Amino acid sequence: VKKNLFDKVAVLGLGLIGGSIALDLKSRRLCKTLNGYNRSRGGRIAAQRKKACDQTFARPEAAVRGADLVILATPVQHIPRLAKQVAPFLKAGAVVTDVGSTKAGIVKKISRALPRGVAFVGGHPIAGTDKSGMTAAQKNLFAGRWWLFTPGPRNQESLRALKKLQSLAEALGAKTAVLSPGEHDRILAAISHLPHLTAYSLVDAVLSFRKGRAIRYAAGGFRDFTRIAASSPEMWTDICLENRAALLAMLSRFEKSLRTLRRHIAKKNAAGLRRLFSRAAEARRRL
Amino acid sequence: VKKNLFDKVAVLGLGLIGGSIALDLKSRRLCKTLNGYNRSRGGRIAAQRKKACDQTFARPEAAVRGADLVILATPVQHIPRLAKQVAPFLKAGAVVTDVGSTKAGIVKKISRALPRGVAFVGGHPIAGTDKSGMTAAQKNLFAGRWWLFTPGPRNQESLRALKKLQSLAEALGAKTAVLSPGEHDRILAAISHLPHLTAYSLVDAVLSFRKGRAIRYAAGGFRDFTRIAASSPEMWTDICLENRAALLAMLSRFEKSLRTLRRHIAKKNAAGLRRLFSRAAEARRRL
Repeated sequence: VKKNLFDKVAVLGLGLIGGSIALDLKSRRLCKTLNGYNRSRGGRIAAQRKKACDQTFARPEAAVRGADLVILATPVQHIPRLAKQVAPFLKAGAVVTDVGSTKAGIVKKISRALPRGVAFVGGHPIAGTDKSGMTAAQKNLFAGRWWLFTPGPRNQESLRALKKLQSLAEALGAKTAVLSPGEHDRILAAISHLPHLTAYSLVDAVLSFRKGRAIRYAAGGFRDFTRIAASSPEMWTDICLENRAALLAMLSRFEKSLRTLRRHIAKKNAAGLRRLFSRAAEARRRL
Repeated sequence: VKKNLFDKVAVLGLGLIGGSIALDLKSRRLCKTLNGYNRSRGGRIAAQRKKACDQTFARPEAAVRGADLVILATPVQHIPRLAKQVAPFLKAGAVVTDVGSTKAGIVKKISRALPRGVAFVGGHPIAGTDKSGMTAAQKNLFAGRWWLFTPGPRNQESLRALKKLQSLAEALGAKTAVLSPGEHDRILAAISHLPHLTAYSLVDAVLSFRKGRAIRYAAGGFRDFTRIAASSPEMWTDICLENRAALLAMLSRFEKSLRTLRRHIAKKNAAGLRRLFSRAAEARRRL
């Protein structure tokens, strides 16, 4: 593990992801100084109690002063505005990354907001749970998880920044991969955004039946299946709207598969059902 | 716990459910003699190794001789035929129950197949996992789970049988409830059959995207969400066809909810998304 890839790091937004990054950087001594910014006082106090930061700030401009690495870790819809807000206060040569669940839209907006001489590389550690906030933050959250990077226009500066960020993510135990922002969003629509949408929708459909009285008999399968429907409604509303196009395309794919199943059931086509179920079961078992 | 509700019990079909019932009855000494029938030799050997039965039989007619309680525990589509096959060999006054995941169709068929003087009460312990077979059978599988009963025409005999079966299920740690076969099937369509259909369909949709290459980035949420898609394709094909009407009705409800979400996303209706997500998240958290 390489130490001190960055001397001074600022984490803006001390939620589950930002807070867990801070905890890992501090406890593994991967930087000399760690500044934390959080809008709410509760988050700042929780970060201090957990010793996630050397110093916490109520204003992001103050937190980024002199930082070699700035990590934008607020909810998705605030990230571009936050980048714009801190841009004038960034150190020349600083590296900026984010941890947003969608990439194409915000990468474009952030790249536009930052001054020359600052390298930006979009990032996304796939490590969310149905919990949120600094109180849910934990060490080792990224161990064994994917941390995807989506660089913008390639130049020497941004390639060097990408390399350092990959080393940092790997020092936190993550596996890294580099994707274009568009490809990232299509993949995440498939493996994360559509499943969340589906879980919310399924719980909604079951609730609309017999005023939700059926749900008391729900067993382990239903619980596992719908656990992600307990995730933050605000966060998922933003993600759905940010990744609108890719999500609608995946939703169409899913609706088509459901229509196929409906047709098989209506026509009592056992072979068709078995074929589709077997294909899915095999793929799931390989996971 | 009442002991010896039944002296001699025959479990026909030593899969996950039948095998686990046998294990509990034997280890808790809830009957004097336990006969097991399984079509495949492998299942019979596994049952003997696990000491789930006093004696195993290759023919169901032999297993039910003298039994006070006969539990039909084969896959759903074989249950009515099995009832018909053993009917002439049942002891007068015997109680018969089953453990099938669907009820309306098979309760009607079984009731017709059995002779007078034999009491039948449909049953369904909601305790399936994505594993199957005698090798997956375990003690205490039913502890804390629902065991639903769906009696046919009520008479003194069947009411007495229902009471004894409820006591037996409770002795195995289950919670019991009594429902009509139709109501049972509509509830299970909502909380179990539709979720399974959805999980299969979702994995299928993700597989159809980029030849399934996106799936490698899948995180914990996707894994939890789609675990039930690893369940037996044969079993779920039969359940879907057996519970066709109720499942198609629930599927319509779900498709309607998905269409609402699609409309909200397409129209960038954040308030609509947040409302639906919040309602589902609250219900899920209450589970």
